[in-house]
Amino acid sequence: MRNLRLDICYDGTRYRGWQRLPGVENTIQGKLEQTLSRILGEDIEISGSGRTDAGAHALCQVANFHCESTMPCPELLAQLRRYLPEDIGIYSCKEVSERFHARLNSKTKTYRYRVWNSETPCVFDRRFVYPMPEKLDLEQMRLAAANFLGEHDFSAFCANKKMKKSTIRRIDSLEIARVREEVVFTVTGNGFLYNMVRILVGTLLEVGMGQRSPESIPALFGAKREEAGHLVPAQGLCLMEVTY
Amino acid sequence: MRNLRLDICYDGTRYRGWQRLPGVENTIQGKLEQTLSRILGEDIEISGSGRTDAGAHALCQVANFHCESTMPCPELLAQLRRYLPEDIGIYSCKEVSERFHARLNSKTKTYRYRVWNSETPCVFDRRFVYPMPEKLDLEQMRLAAANFLGEHDFSAFCANKKMKKSTIRRIDSLEIARVREEVVFTVTGNGFLYNMVRILVGTLLEVGMGQRSPESIPALFGAKREEAGHLVPAQGLCLMEVTY
Repeated sequence: MRNLRLDICYDGTRYRGWQRLPGVENTIQGKLEQTLSRILGEDIEISGSGRTDAGAHALCQVANFHCESTMPCPELLAQLRRYLPEDIGIYSCKEVSERFHARLNSKTKTYRYRVWNSETPCVFDRRFVYPMPEKLDLEQMRLAAANFLGEHDFSAFCANKKMKKSTIRRIDSLEIARVREEVVFTVTGNGFLYNMVRILVGTLLEVGMGQRSPESIPALFGAKREEAGHLVPAQGLCLMEVTY
Repeated sequence: MRNLRLDICYDGTRYRGWQRLPGVENTIQGKLEQTLSRILGEDIEISGSGRTDAGAHALCQVANFHCESTMPCPELLAQLRRYLPEDIGIYSCKEVSERFHARLNSKTKTYRYRVWNSETPCVFDRRFVYPMPEKLDLEQMRLAAANFLGEHDFSAFCANKKMKKSTIRRIDSLEIARVREEVVFTVTGNGFLYNMVRILVGTLLEVGMGQRSPESIPALFGAKREEAGHLVPAQGLCLMEVTY
């Protein structure tokens, strides 16, 4: 069996997220598996580096799958580009070691969240930003963000209430930048819980609006979901990079 | 009568162009006039700085209209933002001198044309680029582009065969830049004929592919439409700026 790695981007607007679910059409994983199975003539199951939410995007998602087919990678790449819909793109397809697993071997992930922080409507990138015109204090948000660095119990930042596994994660960097009309959050860590980035951004936005203080952040570690901020919409979220 | 100026942007993907046409739904002008007429309770006719093609975009189109209404500009702006579809945005609405006319007073216009020059599919900006993976010689294209500067008879670059008015236009600058996977054309001039930018870009792309020489350009001035290059698709085209 060969083990193939795909580097993928997608506009998640019309999808129900990455993960294939029984009875749910239009998931990224489902669409990729369906297309690969047809091209290769065998049942393909792929593993992504992680799930992305319904409506969230990926500038670079990584996945791998095993197959019997001996089709050369350049040909498979060309066929994928031909048959996939225009909102899913493949950067590369290459054979990797039998031991490579997109999810289990990932070391860090980087997500970006884009807030359109202006009264002017966002016309061209409207599917990729969260419009929020309220005045935001970036200095306060950055003070708050510094508290997230390092290893913490992110239980309050996990929307899965039945989570039985560890809710401890490590955040390596969390940057907040103003880029013209946008406020852009870029966060890198060793892994993220369900909805974690979106709740983290929601919490920081509450700091930016003066509803929370930067000093209130440490008390959220190990706390209940209700203690942290609101969940911002998926459309502003994009998986940017996975490292191995 | 007050004279109001609107600065507008739009994603032209689902529109039949700027100009209102009898029996044609979904033009930008038509949608703006309909929305303004409803908000102000009177029949509004607007003048744009110029027409844009079906499927072409505008980062900054300028228009003006006369009205009896005394509604303050900030209120009208808020109402427009509320009632216009999400693919039309209004930057500003302000009262201008009775003599201001968006089309007749315009001094220069700047258009941008984006070519996605890569085998990798363009996922996020797919509605705003023309995908063309062929290898392009930018040096040759720049040599060719220099010939367009100044005043020339652009008859060969006008898709309107019944054009009775002058086909002489002046081009002030024409830049070709590679920006990651894209080749971006930016052209400024005192006015553009029907499809002129798209035929000009098509001609330069033929130079880039070695099908024409830079030295062959001057012979196109005053020539027939067939002599110039092909028409590239509207989706890559965007009106960037109008000066007065």
